[in-house]
Amino acid sequence: MADAVNRQIQLVETPKGKLGPEHFKLADATIPVPSKDGDVQVRTRYISLDAANRAWMQGATYRDAVEAGQVMAGGAIAEVTASNDAGFKVGDRVFADTGWQDYAVLPAKALQKLPALEPETHLMSVYGVAGLTAYFGLLNVGQPKAGETILISAAAGSVGSLVSQIAKAAVPDVTVIGIAGSDEKCQWIQDELGYDAAINYKTQPVYKALKEIAPQGIDVYFDNVGGDILEAALFRMNLFGRIACCGAVSQYDGAPPSSGPRGIPGLIVTKRLTLRGFIMSDFPDEREKALSDLQGWVASGKINVKEDIIEGLENTPAALIGLLAGDNRGKRMVKVI
Amino acid sequence: MADAVNRQIQLVETPKGKLGPEHFKLADATIPVPSKDGDVQVRTRYISLDAANRAWMQGATYRDAVEAGQVMAGGAIAEVTASNDAGFKVGDRVFADTGWQDYAVLPAKALQKLPALEPETHLMSVYGVAGLTAYFGLLNVGQPKAGETILISAAAGSVGSLVSQIAKAAVPDVTVIGIAGSDEKCQWIQDELGYDAAINYKTQPVYKALKEIAPQGIDVYFDNVGGDILEAALFRMNLFGRIACCGAVSQYDGAPPSSGPRGIPGLIVTKRLTLRGFIMSDFPDEREKALSDLQGWVASGKINVKEDIIEGLENTPAALIGLLAGDNRGKRMVKVI
Repeated sequence: MADAVNRQIQLVETPKGKLGPEHFKLADATIPVPSKDGDVQVRTRYISLDAANRAWMQGATYRDAVEAGQVMAGGAIAEVTASNDAGFKVGDRVFADTGWQDYAVLPAKALQKLPALEPETHLMSVYGVAGLTAYFGLLNVGQPKAGETILISAAAGSVGSLVSQIAKAAVPDVTVIGIAGSDEKCQWIQDELGYDAAINYKTQPVYKALKEIAPQGIDVYFDNVGGDILEAALFRMNLFGRIACCGAVSQYDGAPPSSGPRGIPGLIVTKRLTLRGFIMSDFPDEREKALSDLQGWVASGKINVKEDIIEGLENTPAALIGLLAGDNRGKRMVKVI
Repeated sequence: MADAVNRQIQLVETPKGKLGPEHFKLADATIPVPSKDGDVQVRTRYISLDAANRAWMQGATYRDAVEAGQVMAGGAIAEVTASNDAGFKVGDRVFADTGWQDYAVLPAKALQKLPALEPETHLMSVYGVAGLTAYFGLLNVGQPKAGETILISAAAGSVGSLVSQIAKAAVPDVTVIGIAGSDEKCQWIQDELGYDAAINYKTQPVYKALKEIAPQGIDVYFDNVGGDILEAALFRMNLFGRIACCGAVSQYDGAPPSSGPRGIPGLIVTKRLTLRGFIMSDFPDEREKALSDLQGWVASGKINVKEDIIEGLENTPAALIGLLAGDNRGKRMVKVI
């Protein structure tokens, strides 16, 4: 083996407020060896960083909570380095929840074999959770129609950087508006990601800006943030508008909010809105078509894939803290080897 | 004509808080005469009372606001007493927004001809807005499946009194739980309306009661009230649960709430809930089937229609104020003649 130890990043304590470096520690452990039949040893290559990592620390969501003292959980592209399972051989590329460590031993059923594809990082961005989340959230949940106006929060993020491009590729004549946290990001998403307009929520009141930029109202809102921005969007939604509830990143990093957005359920009734939560694994039957569409759009240049790659396992905590502060452009990941 | 005057109940001022008798006045006006081609004079027979009446006073909803000085708006069963339209003849029964008055002149296109049916009051309860709202909200929006658990607020009201019975008639093996505002109503809905269990929200903490009564969780919530009860339901919803947002009666009669329920959008995402607002006119293509289903269930005794009929136009304000306080059992209406 290349390394004598298995470096691990552990969660020291469950953060009560803002996540900081003090909540993690880097420890050296023994490299785990597959002992049971069906066990597979993998070496982590690229760790995915997502706002959801933060949510996992707060309690059970669609997965168990990450508890203090445990290796921090996280999905990764990994390479099989030893296998007790006939389905996996050394050298196979897989996606798995390795956690934030060099090596993991996992049962074969917890691994998802990845196709050979260059660059392999695309398996974690446009062909991974981010791409499928953007695709299903926009097209299956948001159901935009030709000529409609689509609003996206966290517009420069891993998912938001794809939603705008999928919208333009899949639906004729849509107007796509992004919300991001700096003027520089607002410029970048218009220059690089096909956004027609952008709002810097840190300097502009969102409701007022929406009223000016999109007097025609919003038909589809792809919500990554919740909170005040969701509230502003609710008040600007059109009749029969749809809100794809993808995440609430504004609420992961701190104390739980003491109340929800005003206008619920009043505006939902009077405007006959639909709010629907989803995660990308809710659409298994359509996964193949989604990947095929995404590959087509990447090949034709309609999707410009943005990846934000940080080097070194030891930098994973800082990379997540930065992501929660909105530092990333497109899909952030950590290159371990 | 039977009366020399057209009695009208006018809204004196837009209520800022709780609705009271001081917000209305009874006035005598001249009986209006149809002058233009296509105008029809109708005499009001039964005025529908609904929580929505209160919402109309607060601003534009799916209809214009009712302003101070105007005749209070309201739908009614009426009889044609004079007609300048070939489509309507004296004696026809129609449904129309006559407002709270003895006579109205309306363009023919604002009238909906009613079938001859006994008792005619059923046209305003089970075959009217209440019945169609209950039907579409439960079956089209809530989409309950066999064996699921359904929760209904304002369970003794015009809509709630039908939702439970439609659920039992249309979907096998459902468990139906009602929320109402007195022990007596809780008993009544279980004795008369097929509810399997009931919660008195004025004496029981709803979240805790739901946990005890329905440890299996809630699959469909038919929300007539919003506010704290919606919040409690959100925290007890099952994965992929559906909330039919029908109204927010807890929020119509008073100052607008300063915040919405906690858990939005967090719980929507993690549980992949769908919240959808609707009104019964959103489903024109399915109206005929709905009415046919409802007639079948009434004929077979699966639906026991509850009507709460108050006598006298002059009692309409008190009847609405009482409805907002939860006095009614089933569909409340005022018999004018």
